[in-house]
Amino acid sequence: MPEFLQLLPPEEARKLLFVNLPDKKITHEKIETVLSLGRVIAENISAPHSLPEFLRSTVDGYAVRARDTFGASDSVPAYLTLLDEIPMGSAPSQNIGVGQCGLIHTGGMLPPGADAVVMLENTQVALGGDRPSPGNEIEIFRAVADGENVIQIGEDVKTGSVILPSGCRIRPAEIGGLMALGITHLSVAARPKVGLISSGDEIIDPAEQTKPGQVRDINAYTLAALVTKSGGEPILYGIVPDIKSELEAAARRALSECDVVVITAGSSASTRDMTADVIASLGAPGVLVHGINTRPGKPTILGVCEGKAVIGLPGNPVSALVNGYLFVVPVIEKLLGETPRPRPVVTAKLTVNLPSQAGREDWIPVKLVSPQNSNGNQTHLAEPIFGKSNLIFTLTAADGLLRIPPDVTGYGAGEMTEIVLF
Amino acid sequence: MPEFLQLLPPEEARKLLFVNLPDKKITHEKIETVLSLGRVIAENISAPHSLPEFLRSTVDGYAVRARDTFGASDSVPAYLTLLDEIPMGSAPSQNIGVGQCGLIHTGGMLPPGADAVVMLENTQVALGGDRPSPGNEIEIFRAVADGENVIQIGEDVKTGSVILPSGCRIRPAEIGGLMALGITHLSVAARPKVGLISSGDEIIDPAEQTKPGQVRDINAYTLAALVTKSGGEPILYGIVPDIKSELEAAARRALSECDVVVITAGSSASTRDMTADVIASLGAPGVLVHGINTRPGKPTILGVCEGKAVIGLPGNPVSALVNGYLFVVPVIEKLLGETPRPRPVVTAKLTVNLPSQAGREDWIPVKLVSPQNSNGNQTHLAEPIFGKSNLIFTLTAADGLLRIPPDVTGYGAGEMTEIVLF
Repeated sequence: MPEFLQLLPPEEARKLLFVNLPDKKITHEKIETVLSLGRVIAENISAPHSLPEFLRSTVDGYAVRARDTFGASDSVPAYLTLLDEIPMGSAPSQNIGVGQCGLIHTGGMLPPGADAVVMLENTQVALGGDRPSPGNEIEIFRAVADGENVIQIGEDVKTGSVILPSGCRIRPAEIGGLMALGITHLSVAARPKVGLISSGDEIIDPAEQTKPGQVRDINAYTLAALVTKSGGEPILYGIVPDIKSELEAAARRALSECDVVVITAGSSASTRDMTADVIASLGAPGVLVHGINTRPGKPTILGVCEGKAVIGLPGNPVSALVNGYLFVVPVIEKLLGETPRPRPVVTAKLTVNLPSQAGREDWIPVKLVSPQNSNGNQTHLAEPIFGKSNLIFTLTAADGLLRIPPDVTGYGAGEMTEIVLF
Repeated sequence: MPEFLQLLPPEEARKLLFVNLPDKKITHEKIETVLSLGRVIAENISAPHSLPEFLRSTVDGYAVRARDTFGASDSVPAYLTLLDEIPMGSAPSQNIGVGQCGLIHTGGMLPPGADAVVMLENTQVALGGDRPSPGNEIEIFRAVADGENVIQIGEDVKTGSVILPSGCRIRPAEIGGLMALGITHLSVAARPKVGLISSGDEIIDPAEQTKPGQVRDINAYTLAALVTKSGGEPILYGIVPDIKSELEAAARRALSECDVVVITAGSSASTRDMTADVIASLGAPGVLVHGINTRPGKPTILGVCEGKAVIGLPGNPVSALVNGYLFVVPVIEKLLGETPRPRPVVTAKLTVNLPSQAGREDWIPVKLVSPQNSNGNQTHLAEPIFGKSNLIFTLTAADGLLRIPPDVTGYGAGEMTEIVLF
């Protein structure tokens, strides 16, 4: 029984896969901005106009010519004549001339002539009137500089500048930026289709009753959810028995209909070999990596056939899902043209010693326990969840995964570690 | 012009809101497990049967009675007679008697009588045959203990134990656990309806062309996306002019149709006061908090009317979105009955000094720059993005927010800080 001849480090395995994956034009799809949360922008988006489009006040106060307030103080106020109140949402009707001012609200448009705003709390109606009315003299107790309490035209964004680059995944803030500029539709990358094949004579549909020796399909569903979450579209090709011709037929169909194919097979040597043979038969260059120095996930197979990634994941559900994060998600991100943001992690203190083999990358499910300290701040403790890699509930009990890199031979109790949330 | 009489610390403001929010029964909704990603489980889910349901091998090898291998070694192997190969996916047809063994694959069901598995690499077919056939003598070079290389019945989960508690948000792993047990439908919390009202004479629909003095509605859309992302259902009530009766009518309608109401109004003192008056008029106890010691977001209003949270957010888009994260999201989580997981953060080294006022909580948009160090590990640098809180593009440029807690008067350049991703 041959074991794996050569186990590649995961980083190197991923590089080999990506070097062999041709750069393809990303398929665009025009959608409504309101429906774009989580999608990836497919082309640079430029500002059709400046934002703001007019001088805006950032405070409640009086729009003034800054030079008219020069030297104003509590003891020597400046006196300005009040014109009409500046309405919200339309152009001011009057110019601010020498010695004049206009009552303005936060967000209001500065009238021509005005270049600054004096805050209401630094003013007073001269004759002690309660509400300022046109014609009133306004006492100004504080000088303002040109531009003070004003947002300049284009201060948020200038006409023609790239506001959102291709590859950016849309969050609530991006939707706001697009709406601010009236961009109600945009081009996003189409969701890559990821074909999922489960293989194994012991695997049955989750809706069925198990008979002795049978287990329900887990991997098609965890991976489908992972694909969805990553911005892909999962397509399930069902459960294929351990017969090479049947697995090959299913894989060939998936390859022709999808952008990526993922096969999860049993973890026995024979089913692993069958998956590798099938991937090899689908097209050049075929199998690139067979065996990765990681735990869980050693039997993972990475291939490229007809320009598409074909990935064989171990049948153990923990291995399949963890290696889905490590290898399937980056392929989806590449197909989306995404520029990934930093991965969310939580720094936590390890509660026990965790030895690891030199050269191997370990991913250990971890539960975060978060007692509040006396400051009300949370300090996280990382409690590893031990269990064989076929126990799916070791993952449901976990908040994240602790990575032990290949060049580290373990972490000690009390060490601060980074937990990748999933 | 009265400023806020008393600014509450955000933590205290949140507590006051929650104390006044009655505990309601969570509305259940039965859905398919395959469609449940991101939903929150509404009742404890127990295992209908053990997992695994039978003794399973974790390796390729021979199923044996452990006692028959006692003392086996390279020099003194044990000899066992091979029965039939154990098929995948069905019950083994034979018992393992004294001195017998059965060829088994990873994931296969142990036959009656067997209690351990010897790995293939620790065995040899006695007469040097290449493929083991029934009747062969198998040389065993290593003793195994009872249960070695076997997953016990119920080792993953035991019948009747709670596998997923109410309040758990479903990730790919949870879907896998449910499918493993044949739970293809489950009860989740219905999405709380969050009514969103934009107020302001200067605000127009994003699809419209701006005229001087007008700006497009941003807040309804950033908040709708935030609500969606948090598991709620946003309902947009459109843009209401700065007329109290109209705002009150819209708020009353939203309150009757939704579980939460969020009003974003202008930031001028008069519109803030109008929002507070409207919330007060909707029902007891009305306004609980008017002014929070946070930046951005000082003018935030928190209220409870007829048992529902009614929140007034500042009109500045950065303030509205940041305070949406701080106050609207926790309300949605409460209505979902969710047990929140630790917030995703990235630890990063601050590039500049950031002073803050004692007693005030600051949230500063931060860009993460992530040069790779010589080990291939990423160290993140946190670069604050400065800009007035009405500039939405300060948020699109940011990867996350840096919190400066009330009891801290700032952070120094070079300090390690936690950036909350959003």
